[in-house]
Amino acid sequence: MMEVVKYPLRENWKKLLARPAAARTDIGPVVEGILAEIKDKGDEALRRYTEKFDQVALETLKVSEEEFREADASLSHSLKNAIDTASANVEAFHRSQKEPFRKVETMPGVLCWRKSVPIQRVGLYIPGGTAPLFSTLLMLAIPAMVAGCEEIVVCSPPNKQGKLHPAILYIAGRLKIKQVFKVGGAQAIAAMAYGTESIPQVFKIFGPGNAFVTKAKQLVAQEGLAIDLPAGPSEVAVMIDQTADPEFVAADLLAQAEHGTDSQVLLVAKDEMLVAEVLSSIRNQVERLPRKEIAEAALENSRAIILHNMGEMLDLVNEYAPEHLIMSVDQPESLSEQIVNAGSVFLGHYSPESIGDYASGTNHTLPTYGYAKAISGVSLDSFVKKITFQQIDEDGLQRIGPVVEEMAEAEGLHAHKWAVSIRLDSLQSGLSLESE
Amino acid sequence: MMEVVKYPLRENWKKLLARPAAARTDIGPVVEGILAEIKDKGDEALRRYTEKFDQVALETLKVSEEEFREADASLSHSLKNAIDTASANVEAFHRSQKEPFRKVETMPGVLCWRKSVPIQRVGLYIPGGTAPLFSTLLMLAIPAMVAGCEEIVVCSPPNKQGKLHPAILYIAGRLKIKQVFKVGGAQAIAAMAYGTESIPQVFKIFGPGNAFVTKAKQLVAQEGLAIDLPAGPSEVAVMIDQTADPEFVAADLLAQAEHGTDSQVLLVAKDEMLVAEVLSSIRNQVERLPRKEIAEAALENSRAIILHNMGEMLDLVNEYAPEHLIMSVDQPESLSEQIVNAGSVFLGHYSPESIGDYASGTNHTLPTYGYAKAISGVSLDSFVKKITFQQIDEDGLQRIGPVVEEMAEAEGLHAHKWAVSIRLDSLQSGLSLESE
Repeated sequence: MMEVVKYPLRENWKKLLARPAAARTDIGPVVEGILAEIKDKGDEALRRYTEKFDQVALETLKVSEEEFREADASLSHSLKNAIDTASANVEAFHRSQKEPFRKVETMPGVLCWRKSVPIQRVGLYIPGGTAPLFSTLLMLAIPAMVAGCEEIVVCSPPNKQGKLHPAILYIAGRLKIKQVFKVGGAQAIAAMAYGTESIPQVFKIFGPGNAFVTKAKQLVAQEGLAIDLPAGPSEVAVMIDQTADPEFVAADLLAQAEHGTDSQVLLVAKDEMLVAEVLSSIRNQVERLPRKEIAEAALENSRAIILHNMGEMLDLVNEYAPEHLIMSVDQPESLSEQIVNAGSVFLGHYSPESIGDYASGTNHTLPTYGYAKAISGVSLDSFVKKITFQQIDEDGLQRIGPVVEEMAEAEGLHAHKWAVSIRLDSLQSGLSLESE
Repeated sequence: MMEVVKYPLRENWKKLLARPAAARTDIGPVVEGILAEIKDKGDEALRRYTEKFDQVALETLKVSEEEFREADASLSHSLKNAIDTASANVEAFHRSQKEPFRKVETMPGVLCWRKSVPIQRVGLYIPGGTAPLFSTLLMLAIPAMVAGCEEIVVCSPPNKQGKLHPAILYIAGRLKIKQVFKVGGAQAIAAMAYGTESIPQVFKIFGPGNAFVTKAKQLVAQEGLAIDLPAGPSEVAVMIDQTADPEFVAADLLAQAEHGTDSQVLLVAKDEMLVAEVLSSIRNQVERLPRKEIAEAALENSRAIILHNMGEMLDLVNEYAPEHLIMSVDQPESLSEQIVNAGSVFLGHYSPESIGDYASGTNHTLPTYGYAKAISGVSLDSFVKKITFQQIDEDGLQRIGPVVEEMAEAEGLHAHKWAVSIRLDSLQSGLSLESE
């Protein structure tokens, strides 16, 4: 069960809030070996690893039209409707992130602008296993589609029957994504990074995964491929005041704790009695969970911290920089203005994290492990590059040219200066000719 | 001199456009040693490395008020004016990147929004050496200031007299940045990553540097610290048509070539005669350059590529994904709409790259080495995190709750479902009570 820490001194916060250290079995060499094999042998190696790790022999890695149809037929109407509603929300929110296009005349004759241009080819990794997280495909494929990425490649490990979860195929089909491959693990990351006969090479890879997938993403990132976010175990901080319902709070903490034994939850409060009620509710609710053992193990990594006042609570949360922050407090919106480090924030008593995990519209791919101090979650921005443009006319060059000459000279970059001077000279002689 | 390649086949483009491989002397262990020393011994180790690498013994690493005043007094009025003008343009363009705040009601009762929040503490590295690139401080400090970063830390290596270039101090003084330290190399990156007695720990590190600085940034990034961009040698592609002035084009190519022997320039054209004129101009102009040897060495890595038509030229440039692209062509703006991979684009005959390097307003910290296929240059975005928020009211929860229950159930995450159900149940019983 969660440890209760009362009134910790500020100088001890950093240590108190440290994430559990990741188990450091060194899988680097294994993953490097897989990457090298895929780079060298392509599809043949992919099939070999799929047989070894996913225990299924596949002739064709690409999902067929037939499989898409089967998946569509096998999925319940109610789940399809739920996915459709969630999709509409995610799409609406990510569409709202489109940047308005505007040109800025920084000086007369000097026009600057920037334009969001979709990354042409993106790869989405969707973990499999006992509970394939099809919601992750929604969260990655919808912004990719809204951004206008030309080629969207999806890889996910097959089950022992050589199939993907029908919800994954339903979502891909809905978004007209045809390039779906039954490949998982480090080998899938390698395939998208280097390309194989059947899997196209992409420019950026997204998606969560196990330790092998994470390591593979790190390694290809070191080689220069773009990736979405550094990975870490999922986490939530819940801030509560006297208006919070201890049963709701307990449910929110457990929802995070069931993710994995390395998940971390943090409860932040000033009322000791209320914390005791939450812990008591957790004890009751956890009994009913199919993933009880996982949740209990995660709670062992977790803390309830009691502080003197709301100001301290906000400071502590900002120091922790949680992936998810639930503010089960009165007036959450005004208090939330003081949150400076967090991935996604859930305001009030009726905004549980699960709403954002699936359906509110915000993205659930978020910075963990304190990265929220400097890094944003996945958004439309993650699927575009913002290219800058500038256009200077003769008049503009005459205004700005001398500025550049002066600065380039001071930096000792004479060719930089000359590229301006030669143009100014030519304009000058043009003017002389005109005035003759 | 540049190699001229005529009508290469598309299947050979990738190889033709490969960047020169970086010299791979393995400095990893040396840099790891420096990082460990700074982490362990702080300022004492910083002073020791400064004496060793910069050949100056410094008691105090922080720039004093006195030094700021001296720098201000020693700088010419004309350079100050030039810096002021460039600053105003850079500030105007980066201010224009502020994201409008808007809330999106994705469903009735489900409000989502995101907010740009400044990264609280950022570190800017400004290289020193014979020609300190003070313009880089403009390009990093102005967006940091516009973003509202609370603490801006600047590190730059001192000269043998223990001083920084007065233009660096003038710019810092102008922006009211007080935390300027005379520390360079890997040790400066370590100091900002871990913090020392005198240098504050930051959440993100920006700025170019030599191989040691680049390696140090890579290593701290692997430990989870955010950095601006992966580093690579600077490069330009210049597209020309019959309207281009060969003298201007030669000057632009040389401006890039003088950066370093590993710089790369690419000339893309369909008119062989015009290319010959450009090369002839280069031969003449290079003689006058103080950095002639550097430029000539860079030209050895460089190519002029002759293609059949503008469509091919655009495709080749997109495949190369240049850091800088100069379009010395007629109707550059409409052609530029077909550019999908580039860092910063310079349109027309009067927009040399040096204008953007210093003063047009766009940022000069850009993706090299083909990273422009997936990564943007530094902008206001680089200094903020975009935190998402959601607020669901009772009505909204009743609409969206069943969607989340359905999806969580399908993913086998029962606690996620329960966090919604417990709230829906309570609303239901509340309603029953009301109707009694």
